[in-house]
Amino acid sequence: MTSALHFLQLARQCEITELEFLQRTSALVDILGRLIHALQKERGLSMVYLTGRADPEALLTQIKECEPLANKARAGFDDLHIPTQGARLLSRIAYVLQGLDALPDLRDRIQSRQKTPEAAVGAFTKLVTGLLAVVFEAADGAADPDISRLLVALFHFMQGKELAGQERAAGVAAFGAGGEQRQQHWLHLIEAQERCFQVFSEFAPPTLLLQWRGEDATLERLRRVGCTLAVNIESGADLRQTWFDVATSRMDALHTIETQLAAEVLSQCESRIAQARQPLPDADVDADFFDSSPAPAASLGPQLNRSVLELVQDQSQRLQAMQAELETTRAALHERKLVERAKGLLMARRQLTESDAHKLLRQTAMNQGRKLSEVAEAVLAMADLLPPAPH
Amino acid sequence: MTSALHFLQLARQCEITELEFLQRTSALVDILGRLIHALQKERGLSMVYLTGRADPEALLTQIKECEPLANKARAGFDDLHIPTQGARLLSRIAYVLQGLDALPDLRDRIQSRQKTPEAAVGAFTKLVTGLLAVVFEAADGAADPDISRLLVALFHFMQGKELAGQERAAGVAAFGAGGEQRQQHWLHLIEAQERCFQVFSEFAPPTLLLQWRGEDATLERLRRVGCTLAVNIESGADLRQTWFDVATSRMDALHTIETQLAAEVLSQCESRIAQARQPLPDADVDADFFDSSPAPAASLGPQLNRSVLELVQDQSQRLQAMQAELETTRAALHERKLVERAKGLLMARRQLTESDAHKLLRQTAMNQGRKLSEVAEAVLAMADLLPPAPH
Repeated sequence: MTSALHFLQLARQCEITELEFLQRTSALVDILGRLIHALQKERGLSMVYLTGRADPEALLTQIKECEPLANKARAGFDDLHIPTQGARLLSRIAYVLQGLDALPDLRDRIQSRQKTPEAAVGAFTKLVTGLLAVVFEAADGAADPDISRLLVALFHFMQGKELAGQERAAGVAAFGAGGEQRQQHWLHLIEAQERCFQVFSEFAPPTLLLQWRGEDATLERLRRVGCTLAVNIESGADLRQTWFDVATSRMDALHTIETQLAAEVLSQCESRIAQARQPLPDADVDADFFDSSPAPAASLGPQLNRSVLELVQDQSQRLQAMQAELETTRAALHERKLVERAKGLLMARRQLTESDAHKLLRQTAMNQGRKLSEVAEAVLAMADLLPPAPH
Repeated sequence: MTSALHFLQLARQCEITELEFLQRTSALVDILGRLIHALQKERGLSMVYLTGRADPEALLTQIKECEPLANKARAGFDDLHIPTQGARLLSRIAYVLQGLDALPDLRDRIQSRQKTPEAAVGAFTKLVTGLLAVVFEAADGAADPDISRLLVALFHFMQGKELAGQERAAGVAAFGAGGEQRQQHWLHLIEAQERCFQVFSEFAPPTLLLQWRGEDATLERLRRVGCTLAVNIESGADLRQTWFDVATSRMDALHTIETQLAAEVLSQCESRIAQARQPLPDADVDADFFDSSPAPAASLGPQLNRSVLELVQDQSQRLQAMQAELETTRAALHERKLVERAKGLLMARRQLTESDAHKLLRQTAMNQGRKLSEVAEAVLAMADLLPPAPH
């Protein structure tokens, strides 16, 4: 027979264990952000190497920078000690490890020019997507509303930055060879980024938003030239390098914000843990359970000797309020999941590319004056009406 | 440096640990169902004792039946070994333990007629509400979609049965003293039950639904008489006993279904655990991560020697699909939470009773042709516009 106070203390301990796991996860997310940044740069340099006649020196230097980060990420996975309810996170990690194991072989093929530029970009994008899925699970699993908000902001920022990285590669390709399809893809990447950064700005702390200025004029001019003009191949080669440099300095600027956001997550974890470790106030003789009002007591104030019943009620209300707030924050992740699932369905059943599936959803939303997530929900609800996938 | 296969196995182990916890929780829910049933009967008998001049013999017998169940529940709490992410469940348990500790004192006061019938009913209802909140957390925490569906069905059934128990007491009061307000309260309880049983019938397995017939004619006739006529106090006393007996045999019938549903949950847990314990198929030399298609592989078939990559992809897809299904099931719980929170807000800010707050929400929903949960969401969104609680 265990007392109410004992279970109250267990609940406290449970919260602390969760926060400590969140702290380890956040440290991992920070490492993954750095690894992704290095892989993004390697992807860009691989593109430059494969589309031009440059020697692989810059690429080899970048690979050397990437390796210790990959090892740090592996060590981070090992040290996570994922509690129960972490099956999805673990399975995402298993997926990513396969990709990291296959990297050396990919690099050999790129250096010996056995890969097309598009295939090389696709391979890196696949690995980065896998790494971002790990970050997504971490954000989705956070049980503290404030930290969850920061992780939602961070995840969307990282996703937006990845699209900016894909844009860097797409721009290199478009300046290299032109073509309307490449330009369309480029426009799609710009627009998709903006949606991610929109969610980021809704959830990020104001101090970080101050650093988040719009794009600079040079980038916008290059975008305009690249996306609209039939680029002359000769001048294209010059523009390609200019574009790569401008896009790269933009990626570095984005990475600075990303790193600060990750540091903010970690510091929030620390202060929440310190807060949760505060001892419970001394509890006095019990009030009568049946005679006490179920109405909210004020939050834990300085007064001592409160009854166990009051402590239990306070704790219970605090946890409920946290849960309510969490649900609001997670709605942003939920909408993303809906859209991704609806896209996946359209890709499988109607043999569309990712970009075309997205366009179709967006066009439908615009035509019907509905939110993207509402259209996605409707598509999923109608799944049985779509023709089955051809074999 | 740990391999992908290792993390895949960890993910499996994580699933098994979760299922085992779910099994322990389900066993506890079964015990809580029995305890609640005993408390409901004790509440009804207390009402009969306090409104009439009967001797307390039936009540004392019922208390003796209740005690071992309360002890079983306490032992069940101790044996749960709640993993992380269980702070809310633990805090609900701490609350309930306070109520169980206060029971002996409540019973003394009832036997010495120091409590009004309404206060006695209110006290038992408070404890049962706390116990149902434990069941709610258990249902909300289930990570397996099939078991989650069953627990959602079970929780709503138990909630409906509790309203039926409150109806039994309300009927005793109405036949005892009449009064329009009591009749209104009675009608509210009937309607609230129907909504719970509606959700139950959406989520319950078909075999159990077959046992779930409508109410019998005697009960409906007594409801009509009790809710509409000005009951003569003399004949009321007869009707009161008839009503109590009919309502009690109904509660027993509901309890039978409840017990079967709880058994079904347990058997599902067992079969899911057995399934999750199947060893992973032998994995062959790895396919190339970057060359493999990200398209869905078929579900784990009998073929041996599949690549680790395929296993990882299968597992990942299965977990994603489970998550998607879970979200659908939990929507039913989410709607309930919204309505409860909106009611709580209206009660605090507008000084309404629970029943009036519910009526207000329902009336607004009817007037606007919207779902109850939509109105609740709107109320919560407008929280700042409601006048603050008076001190």
